[in-house]
Amino acid sequence: MKISKISLPLIFHFVSLVVTFESLFMLLAVLVSFIYHETIAPTFFYTFIGTLLFGIGLNVLTRKQRYIEPSKRESFIIVSLGWVIMGLVGTLPYLTTGSIPQFTNAFFESISGFTTTGSSILADIEALPKSILFWRAETHWVGGMGIIVLVIAIMPFLKINGIYLFYSEISSVANEKVSTRIKTIARNLWLIYMGLTFIEIILLWIGGMPLFDSICHSFATVATGGFSTKNDSIASYSPFIQYTIAFFMLLSGINFTVHFKLLKGKFRAASKNEELRLYLKIIFVVGAIITLLLFFQQRELGFEPAFRSSFFQVISIITATGFATADYLQWPIQAIILIGILMLIGASSGSTGGGVKVIRHLIAYKQIKQSIKDIIHPNTIKVIRYNSNHVKTEFVQNILTFIFFYYLIVVVGTFTMMYWTEDLATSFGAVATSMAGIGPGFGTVGPVSNFLHLPVGAKYFLTLLMVVGRLEIYSLLVIFTPAFWRD
Amino acid sequence: MKISKISLPLIFHFVSLVVTFESLFMLLAVLVSFIYHETIAPTFFYTFIGTLLFGIGLNVLTRKQRYIEPSKRESFIIVSLGWVIMGLVGTLPYLTTGSIPQFTNAFFESISGFTTTGSSILADIEALPKSILFWRAETHWVGGMGIIVLVIAIMPFLKINGIYLFYSEISSVANEKVSTRIKTIARNLWLIYMGLTFIEIILLWIGGMPLFDSICHSFATVATGGFSTKNDSIASYSPFIQYTIAFFMLLSGINFTVHFKLLKGKFRAASKNEELRLYLKIIFVVGAIITLLLFFQQRELGFEPAFRSSFFQVISIITATGFATADYLQWPIQAIILIGILMLIGASSGSTGGGVKVIRHLIAYKQIKQSIKDIIHPNTIKVIRYNSNHVKTEFVQNILTFIFFYYLIVVVGTFTMMYWTEDLATSFGAVATSMAGIGPGFGTVGPVSNFLHLPVGAKYFLTLLMVVGRLEIYSLLVIFTPAFWRD
Repeated sequence: MKISKISLPLIFHFVSLVVTFESLFMLLAVLVSFIYHETIAPTFFYTFIGTLLFGIGLNVLTRKQRYIEPSKRESFIIVSLGWVIMGLVGTLPYLTTGSIPQFTNAFFESISGFTTTGSSILADIEALPKSILFWRAETHWVGGMGIIVLVIAIMPFLKINGIYLFYSEISSVANEKVSTRIKTIARNLWLIYMGLTFIEIILLWIGGMPLFDSICHSFATVATGGFSTKNDSIASYSPFIQYTIAFFMLLSGINFTVHFKLLKGKFRAASKNEELRLYLKIIFVVGAIITLLLFFQQRELGFEPAFRSSFFQVISIITATGFATADYLQWPIQAIILIGILMLIGASSGSTGGGVKVIRHLIAYKQIKQSIKDIIHPNTIKVIRYNSNHVKTEFVQNILTFIFFYYLIVVVGTFTMMYWTEDLATSFGAVATSMAGIGPGFGTVGPVSNFLHLPVGAKYFLTLLMVVGRLEIYSLLVIFTPAFWRD
Repeated sequence: MKISKISLPLIFHFVSLVVTFESLFMLLAVLVSFIYHETIAPTFFYTFIGTLLFGIGLNVLTRKQRYIEPSKRESFIIVSLGWVIMGLVGTLPYLTTGSIPQFTNAFFESISGFTTTGSSILADIEALPKSILFWRAETHWVGGMGIIVLVIAIMPFLKINGIYLFYSEISSVANEKVSTRIKTIARNLWLIYMGLTFIEIILLWIGGMPLFDSICHSFATVATGGFSTKNDSIASYSPFIQYTIAFFMLLSGINFTVHFKLLKGKFRAASKNEELRLYLKIIFVVGAIITLLLFFQQRELGFEPAFRSSFFQVISIITATGFATADYLQWPIQAIILIGILMLIGASSGSTGGGVKVIRHLIAYKQIKQSIKDIIHPNTIKVIRYNSNHVKTEFVQNILTFIFFYYLIVVVGTFTMMYWTEDLATSFGAVATSMAGIGPGFGTVGPVSNFLHLPVGAKYFLTLLMVVGRLEIYSLLVIFTPAFWRD
């Protein structure tokens, strides 16, 4: 099979769309800057103008590409490059306003935002101008939007990561133009995404959080990002606010096509979703175990605080949000290990959450059961079912390979990080949290620390892992294989 | 499919064979006891007599079962029970002679021997009577024999763990009676096994090791067991002896069907074996890295000692032998991590070595490459080849499931061990080393420590993992599933 050549003008055209789109979000932050009469407002405004003009200029130069559909190979490059370009442009507000003067740190913070990771190099978050805090939160929100469209609407067309082919939303696609269909799916998903954000803002505001912080925290929640406007994250807020955020993290870690079903009133179908059930079961079981561990460790505090901080943290980690109400490194060692395991499990597929994803572990578990049955009854027909549908052998293999590949990157990544940190817990924590897009790790990058002290090389390595994890490995790695560039 | 009932007399008949067989090896140790005029000699002799009489008695009682072929279900029970019975009977010499007075410790030492793990609860090995040291070494040797026959001759018939179906020795089996064929294969394998042992004994003896120690160390090497007759394992022996043992560990970690090919003069076929090539490549690369790390850490000692202790330890760990010439916990952290990774890689399939096995990682890696190619060229035919043979999708799936299952047990096992040790490094080390049948771990169970200080529960848990790992998970776990017992 001969693959078409790569058209650079077409790729630049998509880059122009990304930059222009991003500049509009920058405008919102500029408005915040003017509202609060910040001294950086003019600088921020010029940054926006510069970005916008660059975007529009590039768009005009490449306008002939407008009606051309990218080939598969071009799509891969656009997807990978899109995230990097977003990250690069995202550094501008930090750099021009002097909020984060070094490029490495600004790039780390920006990629951490757009990949909805939420790891930060900032020691004193509250010292930042409000507009910059708003921009940080926006990078999450835009990144979260992007990832949902990517995994639910784009990946199935690129035929990567088998699990996304399950979605019924995709199946009726054959006769439509790809880009039209992507737009329809994207519109529906974004409505849900914005709806969730809006309701959370209102609830947090009712709960007594200032409107500005409510908006920032809601952006960070729905995107399962984790950037807060406070140095101690969510720890000082009221129980009501903590429960609200926990609930919306929980919702954001659910497959958005399930939300879609719920909105259409298909409650039975939604409640029968096996991934959803297992996701809730894991949260319930691990949350309950840690509640008991915390309760026995600090009995004088009573049951409710143990329950609240356990479930908040469990949800925050499994959904890969990374908000903190407690320093889990102070918890009993069993609880810390459970947190580590949650980091590897991940949220639901088709959500803004990260990690390996619940569905992949579920299918792998079913395959184990199947292979045991197979030994006992070798001559029966082997069928793995998910939500009553037959899962093709090819998909199962795809999923098992993904899991192995993911763990392999975690192991090799941990080993590589040792070069910079010389500490196993820190290395594993930093790699696992970056791959899954969580935020805090273990050791010196725990929930009450930050990533500032890491060497420059380690920071770039972790940003790479954030993008690798966010793009579900293959979407990015495929463009680094010789076969990809061969005709 | 209706499964036949389980015949208890048939199972007891096989137990009687195991016990009788084992008692004959006990006799050898009894002879050693008399040769060295040990005070325990009479007690040891009566223990042998008791075991032999029990074995023969049970055999006579169940003699009617002699010509009955066990069903598949019965075979599974016999295999699993076989190892446990061997372990139980193996405690007798320790208990009756008072060498290891507590049952838990004796059982741990015995199972560790028969599974060729080599973890020990003994603090002062040199204080033991020579006959008991001989018995320890024999448990390795018998266990190593058992495992080779199990994986090469029996597993393919039970259709477990796809990789063992590759062996050409098995393919011509169709028309023969199963037990006849097993006996033919077993005889050939044992000849190689005994040949390797004999040559190593001679070489060690020439190298200046007393004959008794040469025999014990050779038993422990060829079985990739790791029990030494010295408290500091191999550390005090001459470089010649260390290189000899390293070389025989290397050989014992190679698939025995490759040895078979070599003996038949099929050098080309053997040298093209992909698992063998990767196995040697891993040893070479990791050995070279650690050599450099050690050389720069202790430059005053010179290059050769760094080279020797690096390669000795790398081979000892990847083959799951567990002999030590150095305390790798004192090595640079990068070297320690590499040792940890080697623990998970494992030796070659069809060898006496343990772990996940090189071939499984090789196939998983090929599958990753395949799935990346698949994204680029979705319409081409997907074929994974191993030694120029097409690997069926079913096998690939089988292998990926095995790896996932193995890692899952390591993760859950580590978490369980935390309950007893409260330390991550110790827990991971103990679980990984037991599953793979290596011997030493990390933390408080490193190469210069032992397992004596662990609580009773932890000891039984680790013996369970040793058997699970040795029987390649499925052979044991299958009998614990409800489906196995249902008709």
